[in-house]
Amino acid sequence: MAVKTVVNAAGRSVPLEINGTPVIPYKGVGKHRPEGKKYAPPVPSCADFPADGNKVAGSLEDALRKCGLADGMTISTHHHLRDGDLVSNLIFDIASGIGVKDLVWFPSASFPCNDPVIRYLDDGTINRIEGSMNGPLGRYVSEGKMKGTAVLRSHGGRVQAIQDGEVKIDIAVLAAPSADPFGNARGTGGSSACGVIGYSKADYMYASKVIVVTDNLVDFPCFPMEIEGNFVDYVVVVDKIGIPEKIVSGTTQITKSPDRLLIAELTARFLEKSGILKDGVTMQAGAGGTSLAIAVFVDEILKDKGWKAKFGFGGSTGYMVKMLEEGRMDYILDAQVFDLDSIRSIVENANHVPYPVFNAYNYHSKGNLTSMMDIMILGATEVDLNFNGNVVTHSDGYLLHGIGGWQNCLHARNVILPIPLFRDRIPVIVDEVTTLCGPGELIDVIITERGIAINPLRQDLIDKVKGSGLPLVTIKDLKDEAERICGKPMKPQFDDRIVAAVKWVDGTVIDVVRKLKQE
Amino acid sequence: MAVKTVVNAAGRSVPLEINGTPVIPYKGVGKHRPEGKKYAPPVPSCADFPADGNKVAGSLEDALRKCGLADGMTISTHHHLRDGDLVSNLIFDIASGIGVKDLVWFPSASFPCNDPVIRYLDDGTINRIEGSMNGPLGRYVSEGKMKGTAVLRSHGGRVQAIQDGEVKIDIAVLAAPSADPFGNARGTGGSSACGVIGYSKADYMYASKVIVVTDNLVDFPCFPMEIEGNFVDYVVVVDKIGIPEKIVSGTTQITKSPDRLLIAELTARFLEKSGILKDGVTMQAGAGGTSLAIAVFVDEILKDKGWKAKFGFGGSTGYMVKMLEEGRMDYILDAQVFDLDSIRSIVENANHVPYPVFNAYNYHSKGNLTSMMDIMILGATEVDLNFNGNVVTHSDGYLLHGIGGWQNCLHARNVILPIPLFRDRIPVIVDEVTTLCGPGELIDVIITERGIAINPLRQDLIDKVKGSGLPLVTIKDLKDEAERICGKPMKPQFDDRIVAAVKWVDGTVIDVVRKLKQE
Repeated sequence: MAVKTVVNAAGRSVPLEINGTPVIPYKGVGKHRPEGKKYAPPVPSCADFPADGNKVAGSLEDALRKCGLADGMTISTHHHLRDGDLVSNLIFDIASGIGVKDLVWFPSASFPCNDPVIRYLDDGTINRIEGSMNGPLGRYVSEGKMKGTAVLRSHGGRVQAIQDGEVKIDIAVLAAPSADPFGNARGTGGSSACGVIGYSKADYMYASKVIVVTDNLVDFPCFPMEIEGNFVDYVVVVDKIGIPEKIVSGTTQITKSPDRLLIAELTARFLEKSGILKDGVTMQAGAGGTSLAIAVFVDEILKDKGWKAKFGFGGSTGYMVKMLEEGRMDYILDAQVFDLDSIRSIVENANHVPYPVFNAYNYHSKGNLTSMMDIMILGATEVDLNFNGNVVTHSDGYLLHGIGGWQNCLHARNVILPIPLFRDRIPVIVDEVTTLCGPGELIDVIITERGIAINPLRQDLIDKVKGSGLPLVTIKDLKDEAERICGKPMKPQFDDRIVAAVKWVDGTVIDVVRKLKQE
Repeated sequence: MAVKTVVNAAGRSVPLEINGTPVIPYKGVGKHRPEGKKYAPPVPSCADFPADGNKVAGSLEDALRKCGLADGMTISTHHHLRDGDLVSNLIFDIASGIGVKDLVWFPSASFPCNDPVIRYLDDGTINRIEGSMNGPLGRYVSEGKMKGTAVLRSHGGRVQAIQDGEVKIDIAVLAAPSADPFGNARGTGGSSACGVIGYSKADYMYASKVIVVTDNLVDFPCFPMEIEGNFVDYVVVVDKIGIPEKIVSGTTQITKSPDRLLIAELTARFLEKSGILKDGVTMQAGAGGTSLAIAVFVDEILKDKGWKAKFGFGGSTGYMVKMLEEGRMDYILDAQVFDLDSIRSIVENANHVPYPVFNAYNYHSKGNLTSMMDIMILGATEVDLNFNGNVVTHSDGYLLHGIGGWQNCLHARNVILPIPLFRDRIPVIVDEVTTLCGPGELIDVIITERGIAINPLRQDLIDKVKGSGLPLVTIKDLKDEAERICGKPMKPQFDDRIVAAVKWVDGTVIDVVRKLKQE
């Protein structure tokens, strides 16, 4: 069944309705003005809660039943336990056991450990996932096997969707490394520490019912209360919420690939020559091997110059912690924690501060952290001649992963994509991105192992690095070079059916992913 | 004009409408079940806020104008600057200058320093105050001079009213001892430190527009962010937000009155003999002279027994800080900070934790801190033969002060009122309270210098202290003794007009204050 579509401001054909609900086509950066009021959950009363503050339920099933788990409900989870998450699948094991159908799973991200939920997509327990889908889950969606349409949102877009009532969470099930019987909870302590659990903030504030699941019940008061007990309905104690070594890495590792190291070095040189890197700089990099290498090179420059970064926004790693501890960074503001050094740091260091995406990334907020940042290092699966970026599909058309904070981060002052010219002999620079996730006007610099392309909209940057000896090229040069080496890639063939919608940070639909044509 | 009234579940005649809005008569403790959803403010957009995060406005007038200050709006403030507040009056100076009329001032409390707003009540700039009114302001209301009807709420009731949309804040003007240009703010630092500013939490979360006023603009990020900048519209920098010596005392002082010391000693003995005081006890006392003396006596007992309090809920003072620092209290959870020792402690001690009334006191929440507390020490202006309590009027009928956290605290396990038998030769124990603020079923023990009366509903406590040598009496004994000494007081004469409504913690109307008959 073909749905009615229109061409949005980015030239993409998008539907006017997704999963039976009207949606707004993308209008351009900063063009959509929200109307109306934020969403609001029901008013609770202390009269319905135990006076002694003990909300411990007998089991997760017990708690889910008490929360009225029923067909069609939206169940939210956070992804702080990453690939070590033992809680999310359990929810759907229980739901399937009870015989509940057509749930919407609304995670802040999913990981390979969540692939077993495919069986619940198959048997109708889950209608759809609104959140990132990787590997087998992404393939499942791309092949048109999911009953409902996936909705892909950035981390900030997820907060916006909850806040604005686009997604109404019936039950939030929030894993917590430490929690007290009242439901106050934090990301540290116990055997499943993940550092922070700030991704749950919109969930617990806006969900009708909130269940905290912990394997480390502590005495009241559990501080810092990243989850506030006075929003929590039930606390469930289980043996293990996560597999520690899959929650955080022992240590995060920089890339060893000579090409990636070259990209990292070029990026650091670009940051220096352009003057973007300066005393008091604010920056965000990820935890990928190239990003870490960039962080190391940047740190060297800071050290040489006697400069200091004002703050780094995490996902934090040991590399950032080193800068903090050695006095080359004033603060780490942290949305998630990637390794053991970071866990230690956030427990010990008052200048390593939890800073939820709720506060940093929500575009329907009175300002965002990202627009205050000087340096934003991001990746992409594809970038096209107009600097448009794709992070959700590969050039073969398969849904690969979620958006993460990528769209939110595009609002930084200088958005830099250090990416290889090709991966597995598939060019990364293309004529037109398979799926549009971020408009080119927000992407400033593409840095590859074979040259640096600056967006012509940033003439200021072009002027600054002219004559600096950096290998400046046009984006077309990069594309041509990639195609010279790899040949022009085949375009994937899509069927009409929309299997996933990609939302922009303001809740409008910027693009869709269509079902791959089956041979 | 007489309004339509009904007799509520406490036997008090209350109106069905206040200031043109329908209200619900009190139904009994835990009897009213709220319906519907929480209130929600408008959805903002980053597109309307500066990308560099700098929201500093030229002046408070500039900010108020940009927020669209207009006739009939509700303006909220917090009271953390106490009697040293230089910001609240300024708002109405500006409003009056602009010619705005019929504002509702919605402070979390008012102090003598706010008496100058009487001129704005006179000239029509302010229609009414919904919040505590002391001394001259209370007299003004009792004499029927305020145009609108005052609404008196507990601290938790204020949060409930905001959350439930009974009060819609148009502009919150929040003084902050430290703030960054983005609007993140805290209660410490600068020359006007007040420790915490947690009373502002409901205000900034639910107001349509939020202005932070500071005299100590710090670099982003201002941590801990007791006010979250992504809820803030404008930041205003002024020379001084407060008069330091009127914000906090140098040190808080225990009573020197022999009668009050006797009451304090009796209270401590009662707590010990009844077994309420125990290892791991949780308690709250105020900062009044008698309360402090009780805290000192209690601390002595803990020391003797080798016991430790689990936590104390502040308003903190140096006495509580001493217990924390000497290891006889695990945590101070703090809603406000009363003296310099406490300010120092909350800056230095990780176990001295800001805990907003938003989280501790809101009855329309999923549980409250107060119901988890063992010992609650409170005062009262009057207690009657049914143990009903009054804290807002004197026996002469004049409105004296606000409810503070008093009603919220009545939900503790053991509510103890150490009060003198009479004040200025006016009995405190009466036949029937002038104004009902708290139902007697929640008040457990009255401790006076001439005996201890235990509520017959608490037979368990009566049994525990029988034969302990404590001077046990009935509440009737206490009343008779007071009247024997002072004579039976004259009842004040009221006119029909309702000048103030007293809300219960669930938003229902438990009683009203009527205009005093003028001779």
